[in-house]
Amino acid sequence: MKLYNSNFAPNPRRVRIFLAEKGVSIPLIEVDLGALEHKRPEFSARNPFETIPVLELDDGTIICESIAICRYIEELHPEPNLFGATALERALVEMWQRRLEQRLFLPIAQAFRHSHPRMAEMENPQVPEWGAANRPKALRAMGIVDEALRDRPFIVGDRFTVADITGLVALDFAKPARIAIPPELKHLDRWHETLAARPSAAA
Amino acid sequence: MKLYNSNFAPNPRRVRIFLAEKGVSIPLIEVDLGALEHKRPEFSARNPFETIPVLELDDGTIICESIAICRYIEELHPEPNLFGATALERALVEMWQRRLEQRLFLPIAQAFRHSHPRMAEMENPQVPEWGAANRPKALRAMGIVDEALRDRPFIVGDRFTVADITGLVALDFAKPARIAIPPELKHLDRWHETLAARPSAAA
Repeated sequence: MKLYNSNFAPNPRRVRIFLAEKGVSIPLIEVDLGALEHKRPEFSARNPFETIPVLELDDGTIICESIAICRYIEELHPEPNLFGATALERALVEMWQRRLEQRLFLPIAQAFRHSHPRMAEMENPQVPEWGAANRPKALRAMGIVDEALRDRPFIVGDRFTVADITGLVALDFAKPARIAIPPELKHLDRWHETLAARPSAAA
Repeated sequence: MKLYNSNFAPNPRRVRIFLAEKGVSIPLIEVDLGALEHKRPEFSARNPFETIPVLELDDGTIICESIAICRYIEELHPEPNLFGATALERALVEMWQRRLEQRLFLPIAQAFRHSHPRMAEMENPQVPEWGAANRPKALRAMGIVDEALRDRPFIVGDRFTVADITGLVALDFAKPARIAIPPELKHLDRWHETLAARPSAAA
């Protein structure tokens, strides 16, 4: 098994943090996004959508999409449980993972991709007006997440799950996207600090 | 249990199709998006992100996000299996569901939201240039999905899964988004017709 990775992109980091939480090690193959290696034929043959991360099994089977890869790792290494232990918890982990991904991480990533000069080649056309329109979306999501965290340490409840990983990666990506996390969001800030202090955050 | 629904939005349709495939019936509560009912306090209290569908359990627990709702229904009604029967199949269902959602459905929805006059109030600001930039993204995804379907009847393999539901809803939404499905994509067209002919498609 091997994982196509980039140390400079947020999505592969989600998988690396997940692996660290599981205590699982998989050989990493670095893909040079700056050199557009992910658009070369040998990579496109593995993933025609040309995104990372990509997990390649020993028989050549390919699994793409960060959360699909994490879910597969969870099947192979069930403990610690990160996707939910009961039907309801699994639903709430899925709900919060998706909310944090689509309502927080996506607007932050769109703000980055449509405003940062380094992304001009990868995000073509860049639409600065769309980048700007995503800033209030990201800030609104931060406020909602802050409120949700008022009565619990992690986003789904009392324990760390894969949804928290998405939250950490999203909030860390706010910095390169130049979106300041409002300091009055105390619960969000406490959560962010707690997650960033876990050893897995360095993965 | 009840489901907050709109018959005019694509996401609740994903859940209705899923329920029809399961043979499960849940009372529907229609939310009038045109009247912005999803932005009223009684709805925001249930889902501060103000999106539908929303599943409300008898004890008042709220599950948002179409796929989280479907996953919960799958837990309660495991047959027919729509999320994958083995670790690998579950990973591939997740991969394709996400690809179809993020690389096909999302660009189609963005093209619609940023170009249709009826969406001006809901998608504020509309960015027509961003709407236009999503058309080639949607067409590229259609080509990749067509190629993937060359050797199999459904997107993950020999049988229908929740990923196919996302594909059907995405392709049907291309029409209001005014994105023509290229007629040369024969595998995509065959798949679309097969899915649209299932009784669940009318749900």
